[in-house]
Amino acid sequence: MRTLTDGRGLLFGGDYNPEQWPEEVWKQDAELMRAAGVNLVTVGVFSWARLEPEPGRHDFGWLDRVLDLMAEHGIAVDLAIPTASPPPWLGHRWPETLPVDEGGHRLWYGSRNQFCPSSGPYRERSQSITTALADRYAAHPALAMWHVGNEYGEVCHCDVSARAFRSWLRDRYGDLATLNEAWGTTFWSQGYGDWAEVVPPRRAPYIINPTQRLDWWRFCSDELLAHFREQRDLLRARTPSVPVTTNFMGFFKRVDYWSFAGEQDVISNDCYPEPGDPLSPARTALTHDLMRGLAGGRPWLLMEQATGAVNWREHNLPKPPGQLRLESLQAVARGADGLCYFQWRASRFGAERFHAAMVPHAGPDTRLHAEVRAHGQELRGLAGVAGEPVPARVAMVFGWESWWALEDRGRPSDRLNAVDQLLRYYVPFFERGVSVDVVPPGADLSAYALVVVPNLFLVGDGDAAALTAYVNGGGVLVVGPFSGVVDPHSHVRTGRFPVPLREVLGASGEEWLPASGPVACRWHGGAPFEAETWTELLRSDGAEVVAEFTGGDLAGRPAILRHRSGEGVAWYVGTMPEPAALAALAGRALADAGVTGVLDGLPPGVEAVRRGEVLFLLNHGATTVRVPVPEPGVDLLTGSPADDHVTLAPRAVAALRPEVPTA
Amino acid sequence: MRTLTDGRGLLFGGDYNPEQWPEEVWKQDAELMRAAGVNLVTVGVFSWARLEPEPGRHDFGWLDRVLDLMAEHGIAVDLAIPTASPPPWLGHRWPETLPVDEGGHRLWYGSRNQFCPSSGPYRERSQSITTALADRYAAHPALAMWHVGNEYGEVCHCDVSARAFRSWLRDRYGDLATLNEAWGTTFWSQGYGDWAEVVPPRRAPYIINPTQRLDWWRFCSDELLAHFREQRDLLRARTPSVPVTTNFMGFFKRVDYWSFAGEQDVISNDCYPEPGDPLSPARTALTHDLMRGLAGGRPWLLMEQATGAVNWREHNLPKPPGQLRLESLQAVARGADGLCYFQWRASRFGAERFHAAMVPHAGPDTRLHAEVRAHGQELRGLAGVAGEPVPARVAMVFGWESWWALEDRGRPSDRLNAVDQLLRYYVPFFERGVSVDVVPPGADLSAYALVVVPNLFLVGDGDAAALTAYVNGGGVLVVGPFSGVVDPHSHVRTGRFPVPLREVLGASGEEWLPASGPVACRWHGGAPFEAETWTELLRSDGAEVVAEFTGGDLAGRPAILRHRSGEGVAWYVGTMPEPAALAALAGRALADAGVTGVLDGLPPGVEAVRRGEVLFLLNHGATTVRVPVPEPGVDLLTGSPADDHVTLAPRAVAALRPEVPTA
Amino acid sequence: MRTLTDGRGLLFGGDYNPEQWPEEVWKQDAELMRAAGVNLVTVGVFSWARLEPEPGRHDFGWLDRVLDLMAEHGIAVDLAIPTASPPPWLGHRWPETLPVDEGGHRLWYGSRNQFCPSSGPYRERSQSITTALADRYAAHPALAMWHVGNEYGEVCHCDVSARAFRSWLRDRYGDLATLNEAWGTTFWSQGYGDWAEVVPPRRAPYIINPTQRLDWWRFCSDELLAHFREQRDLLRARTPSVPVTTNFMGFFKRVDYWSFAGEQDVISNDCYPEPGDPLSPARTALTHDLMRGLAGGRPWLLMEQATGAVNWREHNLPKPPGQLRLESLQAVARGADGLCYFQWRASRFGAERFHAAMVPHAGPDTRLHAEVRAHGQELRGLAGVAGEPVPARVAMVFGWESWWALEDRGRPSDRLNAVDQLLRYYVPFFERGVSVDVVPPGADLSAYALVVVPNLFLVGDGDAAALTAYVNGGGVLVVGPFSGVVDPHSHVRTGRFPVPLREVLGASGEEWLPASGPVACRWHGGAPFEAETWTELLRSDGAEVVAEFTGGDLAGRPAILRHRSGEGVAWYVGTMPEPAALAALAGRALADAGVTGVLDGLPPGVEAVRRGEVLFLLNHGATTVRVPVPEPGVDLLTGSPADDHVTLAPRAVAALRPEVPTA
Repeated sequence: MRTLTDGRGLLFGGDYNPEQWPEEVWKQDAELMRAAGVNLVTVGVFSWARLEPEPGRHDFGWLDRVLDLMAEHGIAVDLAIPTASPPPWLGHRWPETLPVDEGGHRLWYGSRNQFCPSSGPYRERSQSITTALADRYAAHPALAMWHVGNEYGEVCHCDVSARAFRSWLRDRYGDLATLNEAWGTTFWSQGYGDWAEVVPPRRAPYIINPTQRLDWWRFCSDELLAHFREQRDLLRARTPSVPVTTNFMGFFKRVDYWSFAGEQDVISNDCYPEPGDPLSPARTALTHDLMRGLAGGRPWLLMEQATGAVNWREHNLPKPPGQLRLESLQAVARGADGLCYFQWRASRFGAERFHAAMVPHAGPDTRLHAEVRAHGQELRGLAGVAGEPVPARVAMVFGWESWWALEDRGRPSDRLNAVDQLLRYYVPFFERGVSVDVVPPGADLSAYALVVVPNLFLVGDGDAAALTAYVNGGGVLVVGPFSGVVDPHSHVRTGRFPVPLREVLGASGEEWLPASGPVACRWHGGAPFEAETWTELLRSDGAEVVAEFTGGDLAGRPAILRHRSGEGVAWYVGTMPEPAALAALAGRALADAGVTGVLDGLPPGVEAVRRGEVLFLLNHGATTVRVPVPEPGVDLLTGSPADDHVTLAPRAVAALRPEVPTA
Repeated sequence: MRTLTDGRGLLFGGDYNPEQWPEEVWKQDAELMRAAGVNLVTVGVFSWARLEPEPGRHDFGWLDRVLDLMAEHGIAVDLAIPTASPPPWLGHRWPETLPVDEGGHRLWYGSRNQFCPSSGPYRERSQSITTALADRYAAHPALAMWHVGNEYGEVCHCDVSARAFRSWLRDRYGDLATLNEAWGTTFWSQGYGDWAEVVPPRRAPYIINPTQRLDWWRFCSDELLAHFREQRDLLRARTPSVPVTTNFMGFFKRVDYWSFAGEQDVISNDCYPEPGDPLSPARTALTHDLMRGLAGGRPWLLMEQATGAVNWREHNLPKPPGQLRLESLQAVARGADGLCYFQWRASRFGAERFHAAMVPHAGPDTRLHAEVRAHGQELRGLAGVAGEPVPARVAMVFGWESWWALEDRGRPSDRLNAVDQLLRYYVPFFERGVSVDVVPPGADLSAYALVVVPNLFLVGDGDAAALTAYVNGGGVLVVGPFSGVVDPHSHVRTGRFPVPLREVLGASGEEWLPASGPVACRWHGGAPFEAETWTELLRSDGAEVVAEFTGGDLAGRPAILRHRSGEGVAWYVGTMPEPAALAALAGRALADAGVTGVLDGLPPGVEAVRRGEVLFLLNHGATTVRVPVPEPGVDLLTGSPADDHVTLAPRAVAALRPEVPTA
Repeated sequence: MRTLTDGRGLLFGGDYNPEQWPEEVWKQDAELMRAAGVNLVTVGVFSWARLEPEPGRHDFGWLDRVLDLMAEHGIAVDLAIPTASPPPWLGHRWPETLPVDEGGHRLWYGSRNQFCPSSGPYRERSQSITTALADRYAAHPALAMWHVGNEYGEVCHCDVSARAFRSWLRDRYGDLATLNEAWGTTFWSQGYGDWAEVVPPRRAPYIINPTQRLDWWRFCSDELLAHFREQRDLLRARTPSVPVTTNFMGFFKRVDYWSFAGEQDVISNDCYPEPGDPLSPARTALTHDLMRGLAGGRPWLLMEQATGAVNWREHNLPKPPGQLRLESLQAVARGADGLCYFQWRASRFGAERFHAAMVPHAGPDTRLHAEVRAHGQELRGLAGVAGEPVPARVAMVFGWESWWALEDRGRPSDRLNAVDQLLRYYVPFFERGVSVDVVPPGADLSAYALVVVPNLFLVGDGDAAALTAYVNGGGVLVVGPFSGVVDPHSHVRTGRFPVPLREVLGASGEEWLPASGPVACRWHGGAPFEAETWTELLRSDGAEVVAEFTGGDLAGRPAILRHRSGEGVAWYVGTMPEPAALAALAGRALADAGVTGVLDGLPPGVEAVRRGEVLFLLNHGATTVRVPVPEPGVDLLTGSPADDHVTLAPRAVAALRPEVPTA
């Protein structure tokens, strides 16, 4: 497999949709790209109708010219398999390819993504266009990567999907009796007597069977993966050395990216932070860390970001000057080897014509394009970072199955959510400059000094055993509330909770108690703090009570416990502490694990992360700050030396390579 | 008909769903039940698919064993007719049994309640399973009651339902001309020329004909009642002495419980107070009083309540310790002879696995189960209360037809609602310890000293005449705003309002005037107060002006009037006074009627109600209070004597039986 | 064409629906109408089912008697073509006439408006009833006007509509290639290869093609217009001298009233101000000015207003005494020659039975009817106003196509809206007593000293050129933000914006920047002010910087610019200034144009507008005010002289005709 950055350094570019423009613009594009340091463009994501105006009739001439032009200018092409947006002829000739929502409505073309993932005609036409593209461009010098589909996430509830779901369930359960047991169909008289009775979770009078819904999530994700694999295999057969990717969307619920990750050659992601969200820096960092986790620690690509405002929010805030560079370098710091944008040139028409681009409507002689060009150029100084890892001694466990199982109707509270919990626990590490890997349940934890499980509602026996073994072998574990509750069928594990972890935690509980307002707590023998939303009726079974509830019916009962088990330490948190309290807890767990941040004295608002030997410092705050540095170095972005500190204006970044001091 | 409490005292138990558990658990269940004083369980509510895995094939063996086990342990069984949740095979084989919403969507199985009440196959399969169960268990010693369906409330808009609706309308109106007149179809060109044109109120471009909708409410309720009667008649034919019930849901809008009540042998209800609602104690008391009214003053059963948090709200608050006992005893105080829970053992799977139960997931060795057990045991001390009535000299009139007619689109304000108005008027009586009966329009009022009509938007001529006769015969009547507005066709009665009551009220009005904010009022010659939401342009036609508006265009106009008519007194309230003002008004009306509460000096937060000779005192407040008692007695719950007062901690209850003082 | 007011003076009346009442009421109605000065009633708007109980069978006898009765009482009849609400038989016999929403649901009868505008059977039955009515009543002496349909606005997405849409698109574009280019179908792979593939914008997975949606808006409006024209032509052929109208709904988005206006003989409007909205007086004035613009400066009719509360809001506030007169006279002041109400007598049944009427449920002996009667009588004193124009030297440009194009998903901010912007710019002129004409893009502007373009997102080349020519010829122009952005295909015009206006504005921009909060600004060299929601990155290309941003990344950049171009002046406003700042800007533009209000010293809350020679002064405020008048006059409403001022209580109105002073 080729490595994209070999000879190119960091990748820089974006989606390029030349079919929206007359050919005279293309040449200007290529020149502007070269001037801006663009070395990778994604072409053809939404070109199916242009490439195949009617079934089986292809028009590749324009694409030939585009790829030739890119090759001439030394720009690599990430060539798309355009299956994300079928042409109108697909839905018109094969109406059964149009997706059906849970209420039974067909969705139409006129937008994009209008396909049933299980549809035969859709699958066949996908393979046909994939084969045609692969056959034609396999040897094109511009071809550097295949980009299958776009932001996979479609779901369909039609009868074809129902058949596919039944087939998937047969593979999973073998027989109906096993399915009935797994789904708990003795509840509410749901016993199935014939496979033909089994359907997707369609709109129903009341809450739908949670295991049916969990299996539906699994099936929908698997069905999309099956589609991806079909195209990938066709591509691999024709171009074994060209990597294949599809672009993720961060914490996107519909698709289990852990299952996708192993099937891809390169992990790539689309990332659109909300400029108005004060938690954006941490949330984005967490997303990047997830991508690094999906990539198994190897570099990944930021496939789409925006140079300014997007257009799909209700009120789309722009990025102030410097923000696009700050966000792009944040991705580099956290393992990205490529920084791409949607899109190169702002569209004049179509649903995204008000989405910011690298070349805005007003043209290249603009503040925005100047920023893009400067950023593209400065990335050359970071070429040495390409391929470097981001070392981390802390891991956070996150899994899609648990997310799906947790966030369904009919649970104690819809205010305790998987990604929110993950972010709450992530923030204190982010603020201390402690790098974190995001790993799936069941991951090998041996490399980590500290493992945090902010929430793992669903946990398998093996995964729970692995956490226990990790602690007993010397690890430090922090487990958040409402974890270990259900098994992989989403059946509640009976007994004092968390059933499969209570031994290692030295604590157990008997009731989950959503809170009506703020919850008064106190560090044992120490200061008070507040928690919110959630409490549990716990007892110590040997653990040290680190904090206790002080108000209401739980006064005096444990809130946070810490247990020495084997060679390690396990913490359990039975509530949702306020951020400062959670930060204190993180500090104590880090101390247990002997882990520190990359530097001391990190000012608020500054992100610090080390990639390879380079220390990245990024000022997300609104004021200029002085940041002490742990060793003398040189800023790769400016070439300036930094002896014992750097000064960072708002939105400024330093990328310090350590240097042997001259003295 | 057997009386359930004979030989059993108060009933205690819950829904028991053994089909969710392996048989080895059943024996443990029976032992735990016995230890907890359980003497009644409801079995099989959701067992249709288990009992009839395919049409006509029955599997009763497991149920035989369950009933035998219960009989062995002396636990009576309320055996369910499981028609509330048909098996998937019903919808799969007869798709027309799946209900259709007003937008034309079929709803699917996968949850529960997926049936069209008018569907032929559904009706036939219901009768078949009912017959099979009745034939098999008619003589079983455990059988104590039949429980038909569950929480009736399904509605369907399909073509089968349309045919049934037309048939119902033919019965009601005879011919189309009469229907056209009743529905006022000259408005908006809705005249029907053929019965086949008449359909349910399906989704339409704008507001739907209100009489069509009112008749639809009536039809839907009647159609469910017809289903209930079909099963009941099959059961009665086989077990004439076994009572038949179906469980209500309090103020549930879709079903006219007054019409259901007369068809049932026992009134039973499901009651789930929202722990976070400060009005819960009064709202729940009102619901209990409604049940007593539906039962014609005889005892009723609390068929379902929760031991802790439910799972179907977004954020499900738990009950603090003592709360389950407090709520259960509140039901006893207000006429319940049975206290049952959903459900005995918390489910591991299915949509309600996070609903609290008598035995939680953590098992019997828990705080919660200990509370359940203690409560079940203490109920034995109240055995003598079973069968006793709750005397009341005040009645409040409430009817479903008026509720349906009022709360439709296109009225002056959607902030004046039937149940809210009822509760507003109920609260001051609740707070004074004055017992209230809830009665339907047209009820015999001769036993009451005071009758309150918080809102009766729709009133028939006869019902209005009965109210007038009641006053003229010496009664005291209080009528709230926007009453007497429409006739049973929901046609506005023309002339000064309230047309059929203005004579007895000695007052009349010409405009309903929703208010834009707080409304300034004053007691005539007295203190100011505020009202809200609603005003009316009224005049006295002989009534005394008790309060007047003081602000805006209505300044100086009457707000509340009082009229001596015949031997009695009639009040009219043309606004929505703040709670304190409404309490003052209630006090004056009580004085008119010569009615007082069960004791003087009732502290805030304490509910006082007498059942039979026993005085129940329940502390819903957050502080310990001293409550004076009207006579010496003994607390049946503790055996302690009470000479002149009792002290009640928060959530504490006393049940005082008067004793002849020893002196 | 007859002029309705000849011999009648101002028209006064309302919708009259006698079919809802027994005939004995009709005579009483006629007498009450005469007493109230009613001289025009609209009859039969919702009488289709009554007039044609089954297809082809007519029952006109009752209508004959109604029209005879009106003629006997000297009351003119605006006779309705009742196509807005087809009888149930239409939908029952021809289900394809029932409209389908964008999700694919059919909407049913039971309300009103249930028709597909493109349906053949609907069109045929419309023509049939129109012909029958026209034939029968062409010569009836009561007939004064035809009223086609009611509040046109229906939309349907069915396959019949799809065919009609395709036909409309063929007429517009000729061939598919042109359509593909106009719709920009290279975006998201939407290229159409066959006309049969083209469909309405139905529910889709994501944002729908904006040009497809814009053309859909155009088509839907045109299709309704086609229906109107069909009936109108049938009527004109039979009664060439009887004017034809259909009633508008002010700023109603679905129908382009500019295109309807030219096809009508009389412009009429329905206007229901929200009593709780403090901006109602200005908003209503603006709507009236739009009607005058649609009428080309000629008088128009207020076809529907309410005497009090409506019934279709959630909480329907009433009108205080005097308010109905104030609102009615406001319409007269702004060019209305007729003041009609929905409806004469309050319905007893149907969806609008709680809508206020001229005769309330309580009858004629009421406060409300007395107000109606007094108002009808006083209108006689204003007879001389009929036919008079409202002179204006300021125009505001507003167009439906731009509105449709702007307010779609996928734009920078949904907080910048067409009508809101229009109102923001209108308010300062309203408050100064400066009359404003509302004109369409492309209107002849030569009569105006000042032209304001609050927002014109979509602008054609010719319309932009006309604005430029207007300025260069000596006009003063004010252009609001986000104007001139797209062309008639809704394609963004590339280059510095606003592309087609930047030369005349002497300014241009490169980024639209929605703001996260308040925006600090300053008048150049002067005082600070605030703006909100929206900013732009602008530069002067020769224009004077009148105000600049002072905070954030735009500090020091222009916010408002003023440019002398040719003989005129052009202003550009690149943000949304707070009301006081916008008022200051309006003052400076008025000074540039040499325009002043109708009088100096206008107190807050008082509206001043001159119609013909009569000066109307209307007090919308809550306090009594003294208003200086520019010349001695006599109040036509009271006959009182006014030398140098009038005193107006809240809701009072003066209508001053100048008199030569006696001295």
